Amino acid sequence: MKTFTDKAIDAIKKKKSVLCVGFDPQVKYIPKEILQKAWNESKNTLGFEPVARAFVAYNAAIAKAVAPYAAFAKPQMAFYEKYGNWGVWAFEETKAICEGLGLVTLEDAKRSDGGDTAEAYAEGHLGKVDVWDGDSQEFIKKPSFNLDAMTVTAYIGSSCVNPFVKVVKEFGKGIFIVDKTSFDPNSEVEQMNTTTGRKVWEELAFLAWNWGQGTEGEQGYRNVGVVMGATYPEDADTMREILGENCFFLIPGYGAQGGGAAGAVRGINKNGLGGIVNSSRGIIFAYREDVQKGKFACDPKDFAKAAANAADFSRDELNTALINAGKMDW
Amino acid sequence: MKTFTDKAIDAIKKKKSVLCVGFDPQVKYIPKEILQKAWNESKNTLGFEPVARAFVAYNAAIAKAVAPYAAFAKPQMAFYEKYGNWGVWAFEETKAICEGLGLVTLEDAKRSDGGDTAEAYAEGHLGKVDVWDGDSQEFIKKPSFNLDAMTVTAYIGSSCVNPFVKVVKEFGKGIFIVDKTSFDPNSEVEQMNTTTGRKVWEELAFLAWNWGQGTEGEQGYRNVGVVMGATYPEDADTMREILGENCFFLIPGYGAQGGGAAGAVRGINKNGLGGIVNSSRGIIFAYREDVQKGKFACDPKDFAKAAANAADFSRDELNTALINAGKMDW
Repeated sequence: MKTFTDKAIDAIKKKKSVLCVGFDPQVKYIPKEILQKAWNESKNTLGFEPVARAFVAYNAAIAKAVAPYAAFAKPQMAFYEKYGNWGVWAFEETKAICEGLGLVTLEDAKRSDGGDTAEAYAEGHLGKVDVWDGDSQEFIKKPSFNLDAMTVTAYIGSSCVNPFVKVVKEFGKGIFIVDKTSFDPNSEVEQMNTTTGRKVWEELAFLAWNWGQGTEGEQGYRNVGVVMGATYPEDADTMREILGENCFFLIPGYGAQGGGAAGAVRGINKNGLGGIVNSSRGIIFAYREDVQKGKFACDPKDFAKAAANAADFSRDELNTALINAGKMDW
Repeated sequence: MKTFTDKAIDAIKKKKSVLCVGFDPQVKYIPKEILQKAWNESKNTLGFEPVARAFVAYNAAIAKAVAPYAAFAKPQMAFYEKYGNWGVWAFEETKAICEGLGLVTLEDAKRSDGGDTAEAYAEGHLGKVDVWDGDSQEFIKKPSFNLDAMTVTAYIGSSCVNPFVKVVKEFGKGIFIVDKTSFDPNSEVEQMNTTTGRKVWEELAFLAWNWGQGTEGEQGYRNVGVVMGATYPEDADTMREILGENCFFLIPGYGAQGGGAAGAVRGINKNGLGGIVNSSRGIIFAYREDVQKGKFACDPKDFAKAAANAADFSRDELNTALINAGKMDW
């Protein structure tokens, strides 16, 4: 079965790009013309329908603009679900649009729970869910969100991750364990020193290695990866040492969060594989003066063109960094 | 301002109950008559509308049945969002129904992220979100899910929790840091030994104490609590020692997960406050033979009556355990 990592490798080679665009919409950054048009088209302006429609319109234009330069799309669920059921509708539409353009879809949801609750998350986001079919009078299974991969916060350990791994294996999907994040200040929990001499995030990396056993795709890469923040490049070597070459890193923090291209690609293998570098605001809101020091700033109505320019630039910058590091044979 | 912990204390005293009912619907456990009726009433049977309508119908009957015995309702988001936007609609309806019956609403969502993404979760679930108002042509703020409290997974540390604490303070809401969970096997991460001589979950409890400073409500209880699983009662004493008397524990694992009443109330203060004990399947699916060893088993059509009996029994069992432990002065 063609798994998530197989799709990822194909996409990287085809697009010559390790770039992932984060679809993290914020209503205050969407041009007023789009907001007003969505308002005018909405039946239920007392609820969140107008915001949801504005998100879909904005994202559709961005997705089309960046698709030539990016291999991956990563919608962050937080920015959608904050608008309730309409927001989740916008997430579903965004995912479908990105998929339709050939982008591999990663969901940043950082879900975390245990037992049958973890199973519910895994089935809903990656697998299939039970429904009652009133025609046949039987239970049937249907895909729901059906992303290619998602992020999982593994504080709850195996009780959380095992149900996800089960779905990963059954449906050829992928997960990324939230391990070493890109935030500043860096997590007090990740940084705790354990009695083994390693930090919590390093111990978690060993656990992630264990969880990933037997999840290899057709091209040998495992479908349990880790999140490895671009803002802490010195830790990328350790992460790679623990996890081996056949593991994918999801690398956030490049671009607006301050991580440079050289740091972002540090954890990527010599063959140019094993890493997916995400930029969100730095691309989708590139039209703004306060993003990327205004490098792509322009009239708000040209937001899609700015996003295309930023994605084009980011892909090239990452590829240059890969070449400079003696990596990339695709 | 009357905060979450003030509401919680009022509800416990009024109901003479520390019981929380977990609204964790599973389609396979809902009587076929309800599923078929929802199917017949749905316009969009290709999507998840029928499941969502069945959840709302089932939950409404359960909520009415258990409201005399429970002080809290805790819908678990995983079981709703697995059905996409329709599922989230069912969550919203369930929350509104529970609130209308005077139950304090806790959302089990275990959200986790950092920076502006954590802010998005906090605003969406507890605070207010930005929307464009097409009439006034201005941005305005509206509540969205608007729960009384929610669970937060704090692996990402202060970058995750601080934005939640900001919303907690501004809107009088509460959060529970996922700390010592009820699952078996217990989390490898929670159990890691740190160089301070304490385990990760104990160190996290100290962090939770720090995060909770300045969140006290009118009755002196903090609005940053912790999750403390009923299945590990020996750890409840340590947790209370670290967090002090004015902290609320959300205590899952009582009932179907195997935690007994004595263990469940172990972390509760002498005055009977500081703990909320959750039971999900043990109450909402009490009609089934395979739940609670069939103690409340009955014809599926009487599911609401079984839930009422189970809630009544659970409240009494917990109160007896409190009295036996020399606690409870309400």
